[in-house]
Amino acid sequence: MADLQKFIRNVPDFPKKGIGFKDITTLLREGKVFHEAVDVLAEKFSDKEIRKIVGIESRGFIFGAALAYKWNIGFVPVRKPGKLPAATVKEEYELEYGTDAVEMHKDAVSQNEKVLIVDDLLATGGTAAATLKLVRKLGGDIQGVVFLIELNFLNGREKLKGYDVISIIQYDSE
Amino acid sequence: MADLQKFIRNVPDFPKKGIGFKDITTLLREGKVFHEAVDVLAEKFSDKEIRKIVGIESRGFIFGAALAYKWNIGFVPVRKPGKLPAATVKEEYELEYGTDAVEMHKDAVSQNEKVLIVDDLLATGGTAAATLKLVRKLGGDIQGVVFLIELNFLNGREKLKGYDVISIIQYDSE
Repeated sequence: MADLQKFIRNVPDFPKKGIGFKDITTLLREGKVFHEAVDVLAEKFSDKEIRKIVGIESRGFIFGAALAYKWNIGFVPVRKPGKLPAATVKEEYELEYGTDAVEMHKDAVSQNEKVLIVDDLLATGGTAAATLKLVRKLGGDIQGVVFLIELNFLNGREKLKGYDVISIIQYDSE
Repeated sequence: MADLQKFIRNVPDFPKKGIGFKDITTLLREGKVFHEAVDVLAEKFSDKEIRKIVGIESRGFIFGAALAYKWNIGFVPVRKPGKLPAATVKEEYELEYGTDAVEMHKDAVSQNEKVLIVDDLLATGGTAAATLKLVRKLGGDIQGVVFLIELNFLNGREKLKGYDVISIIQYDSE
């Protein structure tokens, strides 16, 4: 198995001074490494009989769609407001300054459907927590939340308490 | 084979009056149909020995990532300006009013690497044409451009002349 972490590029001071951005494009561009990363994510939930992947815009689409393809199950995009054309549910969440929101189509998930939520990175957890609420509103049975990367020092996991939260690459500091 | 077109939802007057939005989420949520759509796209280029998928933000990530996973090859995201953290190439393109632009990391594609460009929808072709220029700047060997949907009446194909352009669902009118 490849050391996945060494394929993540740390870009200092992006998007602003003092932040070390975890760039996954250096992992994605390596075919075998990307493939293996998807398989490792899949392995963590292989016994759960997941029926639908919910992927968070926009890097969550990359891992989410590959997982959905692998498992032959449906893919549901969670998007910023105004992007989805049909009737949606919406959840706001707090940012450092102000608020943002995410939406999902109302007909995207069925009552009691087993769902896995996918994103590339767990930072403060605001978007993932809002996505949990969206899926709950529609009655989905959330089997877990999976991230390629987790920034342990931001404690995003605290916002996702009560759920099976998995990440495969962790950072303890910037 | 499923009739893929019947899984596309037409949403009238979105994002503005008179536009019939082609909503792919009703196809994506059906696991077997999504899987088959990816396989049909793949089939069109199965003899080309593609080495990298370039997917256009953000719905192009969905089909592009699934294809990259299927073929065990690298995935490269093309994004709106300011999203990619490392050094990029950039191309502007014209909109109905004003301009927009797309970026790709400079180290995303190698000289002579065989590349397939993927997006969900060919409308006026501006974004895809700009993406062709990005890949050419880096010396990539473009094997084709593939779309799930093509709006024939917008003549986007005209902007992609000289390339192998494939779509699997076509609309002749709004």
